[in-house]
Amino acid sequence: MKAILKEDLAQCHQRIKDHIHRTPILSSSLLNEIVGASIYFKCENFQRMGAFKMRGAAHAISNLSEEQKSKGVVTHSSGNFAQALSLAARSLDVKAYIVMPDTAPQVKKEAVKGYGGNIIECESTIVAREVAAEKIVNEVGATFIHPSNDLDVILGQGTAAVELLQDHPDLDFLFTPVGGGGLIAGCALAAHFYGNNCKTIGGEPLACDDAYRSLKSGTIETNDSTLTIADGLKTQLGNVNFPIIQTYVDRIIRVEESEIVEAMRLIWERMKIIVEPSSAVAFAALLKEKSSFKNKKVGIIISGGNVDLGKLPF
Amino acid sequence: MKAILKEDLAQCHQRIKDHIHRTPILSSSLLNEIVGASIYFKCENFQRMGAFKMRGAAHAISNLSEEQKSKGVVTHSSGNFAQALSLAARSLDVKAYIVMPDTAPQVKKEAVKGYGGNIIECESTIVAREVAAEKIVNEVGATFIHPSNDLDVILGQGTAAVELLQDHPDLDFLFTPVGGGGLIAGCALAAHFYGNNCKTIGGEPLACDDAYRSLKSGTIETNDSTLTIADGLKTQLGNVNFPIIQTYVDRIIRVEESEIVEAMRLIWERMKIIVEPSSAVAFAALLKEKSSFKNKKVGIIISGGNVDLGKLPF
Repeated sequence: MKAILKEDLAQCHQRIKDHIHRTPILSSSLLNEIVGASIYFKCENFQRMGAFKMRGAAHAISNLSEEQKSKGVVTHSSGNFAQALSLAARSLDVKAYIVMPDTAPQVKKEAVKGYGGNIIECESTIVAREVAAEKIVNEVGATFIHPSNDLDVILGQGTAAVELLQDHPDLDFLFTPVGGGGLIAGCALAAHFYGNNCKTIGGEPLACDDAYRSLKSGTIETNDSTLTIADGLKTQLGNVNFPIIQTYVDRIIRVEESEIVEAMRLIWERMKIIVEPSSAVAFAALLKEKSSFKNKKVGIIISGGNVDLGKLPF
Repeated sequence: MKAILKEDLAQCHQRIKDHIHRTPILSSSLLNEIVGASIYFKCENFQRMGAFKMRGAAHAISNLSEEQKSKGVVTHSSGNFAQALSLAARSLDVKAYIVMPDTAPQVKKEAVKGYGGNIIECESTIVAREVAAEKIVNEVGATFIHPSNDLDVILGQGTAAVELLQDHPDLDFLFTPVGGGGLIAGCALAAHFYGNNCKTIGGEPLACDDAYRSLKSGTIETNDSTLTIADGLKTQLGNVNFPIIQTYVDRIIRVEESEIVEAMRLIWERMKIIVEPSSAVAFAALLKEKSSFKNKKVGIIISGGNVDLGKLPF
């Protein structure tokens, strides 16, 4: 693999910046007090379609040839990347085919349709999703874009951290949730190139701790079960993002389901913003080991805010 | 009554600005599309203690003499003003006595205690609240500060609209919820002095439409029942704010309970911010008569974000 340079991130940011919002960075004196650190929340819940995934989707599509664009794009996603690819594709006048598990929240299915995506439902297993996506590639010639294991996508997601570090270059730590690995890989690259000795730490549900175990074992591990409220974090790492994570991520902190709900409730009640459970995992990780981060400057990527209000854990 | 001048609002803003946040103004292209107007939400849910009432409380206390401050302040409130007076009093080293209905949401009672307020519980009627507050005035000599029918409080609340109009001086309309009348009176003054022919419109629950009826009859009307989800809007107008409302408010639009919940859901889902039902009433009023506001620039005061997450209407 060709070495990734700071310039790759900078070019990516330049390329997508008309397709994304530069999201606000919020702080809360109450949450700072609880943790004993200065926390900067990069609010990708305010991103277009409500999650950071818009960044990677826009970057991946904008790098396709005209020939590829004419045949459309396809992906499988448990939700946010589905919306992101649909919206980015519509912005670029490209057709998007979205393979979604039939268990995905209704609000996410409706959003995909609203953004013009064509949904193909399948069973909620990784194998079923891959089979359904491959069928579309073969039948219509669409380009498959993986939600997390694609270098263009990884670089796109990293621009959330690029923006955070442009405004706060002296962060000591950067926390992100870990699902398929695209966000944390991209953000770890950004912390490496744009930070000043800024360490990247992942938050992961104990119930789906494949990334934690992968870093320990040195090979990509899978999850036997995916029973977590953090429905964006059920997927596993891939061969493109794993080496980046191995090189640039400091460590992963695992959190219980109750800790995720508690962190989510704190953010909702104190900051008055809506974040999805997957987003709360990074803050839950900081809360869990707060004594290690006393008086530090900590960035947290709030990954998204797409929740089904009919199914809240409160 | 002495005439109120633009300078009164300007001085008030100057006086309280170190005690409050200058809250962000947010827009949503999706909500603009739904309404067909350009909407600017002044997000007082991000204000200190989560509501605009911090403004009026800070102004009222800062105008007391040292002698008065030494004996404390007392108020009765269904929630947000209780928290506001507690926090403002603590900032100014003054003791706060808070008379609250025993039916107030638990999250609001806990917040008052967290801000150092001393709670005195009473029955959920206006008479019971007034009796309990008067007892404190007589016993400890505390100064009574009314949540909405006090000119210092009214001017303080108006600074939310001052800030909105400083950033967007060309608003055609300004919407606020109507409860006790402090917010809408202050904001209507701000629209008059800082706007350019900007009309102020109130949103009020049909179930507690005392202000609507008061404007029609020319005298302060009361509510026979207060069965609305908008728990901050159950109170009635007062003799200080009513003349201001009569002079400067264009009209009041009444909304059904289901319209309040629908407006609240739209804001939560689309803007990813937490607003309380009372806040959603102003947006519900705009939604209800959206055809009258086509292509207009509309400001909306999002009054607060203090909700009990255990009791959501979704």
